[in-house]
Amino acid sequence: MSGPPPAVAAVRSAVRRALAPLPADTTVLVACSGGADSLALAGAAAFEAPRLGLRAGAVTVDHGLQEGSAERAEKVAAVLAGLGLDPVSVRAVEVSGTGGPEGAARTARRAALAGAAAEHAPAAVLLGHTLDDQAETVLLGLARGSGARSLSGMAPSSGGLLRPLLDLDRATVRAACAAMGLTPWEDPHNADPRFSRSRVRHDTLPALERTLGPGVAAALARTASLLRADADALDSLALELGSRARAPEGLSAEVLGAAPEALRSRALRRAALDAGCPAGALTSRHVREVDRLVTAWRGQAHLDLPGGVRARRVAGHVRFER
Amino acid sequence: MSGPPPAVAAVRSAVRRALAPLPADTTVLVACSGGADSLALAGAAAFEAPRLGLRAGAVTVDHGLQEGSAERAEKVAAVLAGLGLDPVSVRAVEVSGTGGPEGAARTARRAALAGAAAEHAPAAVLLGHTLDDQAETVLLGLARGSGARSLSGMAPSSGGLLRPLLDLDRATVRAACAAMGLTPWEDPHNADPRFSRSRVRHDTLPALERTLGPGVAAALARTASLLRADADALDSLALELGSRARAPEGLSAEVLGAAPEALRSRALRRAALDAGCPAGALTSRHVREVDRLVTAWRGQAHLDLPGGVRARRVAGHVRFER
Repeated sequence: MSGPPPAVAAVRSAVRRALAPLPADTTVLVACSGGADSLALAGAAAFEAPRLGLRAGAVTVDHGLQEGSAERAEKVAAVLAGLGLDPVSVRAVEVSGTGGPEGAARTARRAALAGAAAEHAPAAVLLGHTLDDQAETVLLGLARGSGARSLSGMAPSSGGLLRPLLDLDRATVRAACAAMGLTPWEDPHNADPRFSRSRVRHDTLPALERTLGPGVAAALARTASLLRADADALDSLALELGSRARAPEGLSAEVLGAAPEALRSRALRRAALDAGCPAGALTSRHVREVDRLVTAWRGQAHLDLPGGVRARRVAGHVRFER
Repeated sequence: MSGPPPAVAAVRSAVRRALAPLPADTTVLVACSGGADSLALAGAAAFEAPRLGLRAGAVTVDHGLQEGSAERAEKVAAVLAGLGLDPVSVRAVEVSGTGGPEGAARTARRAALAGAAAEHAPAAVLLGHTLDDQAETVLLGLARGSGARSLSGMAPSSGGLLRPLLDLDRATVRAACAAMGLTPWEDPHNADPRFSRSRVRHDTLPALERTLGPGVAAALARTASLLRADADALDSLALELGSRARAPEGLSAEVLGAAPEALRSRALRRAALDAGCPAGALTSRHVREVDRLVTAWRGQAHLDLPGGVRARRVAGHVRFER
């Protein structure tokens, strides 16, 4: 007997590895847009979950951004139910608010998934991001220039979310979708050059492949995973440093000054955020200026940071006040 | 009295900041190809060094790769002497050996600079790399996908080399060169698409600017400097971890296992290199496999690593043998 086509085997095996550690007799929910990636994920989860003693359901989100989106979501739900997934729920959201159209849609989608999770209490919610999505995320982080964390992309597992397909390229996942006999529906927004992810997908990454050679997406994904481990280690060491430096007067400049820059800057950034600086407005340049209160102290005045937070050095300690 | 044009002021001030910490009455050598960047650096060093009580000389390398390169080098040397730099030396090299044409030229150039340094014992050798060169270096590292160190670009200061222009973009430096009345000579190799740096400069970076927006080069340079601080901290913490884990039997799996992945993987990589693995051949995948001897020990067999090095776990310790 011949096995499934290689692409299907690869997707199923990735899903199996992700699901194996989950407790038996629990439910997983596949978040499925109807696109090829999450449809292949749904197909593989429907196949693998029962073999591992798990139940697999699905949730699809109706963003309400296009004519006929509700009917579209119902059709996707019908396909998912046809795969044997149960429960399958459609959650309608209203996309509004700040952060640009992409940010607003993401926020609404996350709230919908959280709602589905609250209703069904799944052991995990599965997302269909691939290696190519990861590479795109790294490039978007690169354009911000804000360090290891923003280059570390999406986590394979975090906060009840699993991304089983993160090591597989999109071509493999699409081939698996086709080989499973599933017909994907592609969100036209994915090809809309007004969206920065779409530009990265259709212009930036191909330009990198053309000029740096093939394999760039895989290199970016590898980078993300190495930098994620770095950022985790540095964040946790910086947290320790912050605790050791903390005194009633502020953070001890002596304790901070003995630590390497990478830990010092993270501890100072953390303290500034805790004092009320908005994360999006606090740049690495701000943090570098605060760091000079530690490493280049010559009696300089206080520093004004975003969110009305003021940093100053008093009696050998760096204090953040609002 | 009006001051110098803004671009000239920016280059001079960057050079002044880099030279200020050097001991008075010493010599600095500018490495100058005759290109706009290093020529502007030479002009600024000739201006600033005497004001700081330093002597500035220059060295230009004749790579012997083009017809008339010796005459070209002599002309550059004459321009440098005309700026008041002294001593000015021309060093001819033979580009050969491995690592591709770019790597071979770099190796030969480094040897020539080391020779000039040995002859003149300068307090520092100044290199004309700009923010754009730094961004290109980060992109080349990104294509390799090998972590923070390879993304941290070039150091502003290391091993007697200074790169005063690393925070200035190429456009500013070129404007300064023109405003100083100096006529640069551009190496045709810089535009030759056979060279990966040239492709990154003329294709990759413009494509990123086009699709991700302007400011990408600055974001890449910022990333480099953040990741350099990260890599320095992690390398030094991993060195400590390696010392703590070291025992006559090998590296203690218990000590390594209690450390975060980012430190463990660096300590294991270091130990593999010390045992004789060639750095270029030892991938992050190899290191991840070795790490499984620590974190996922189930009695697995030894691992064969590049350079005939074998890693195995014996009595709670990871050993590297050749």
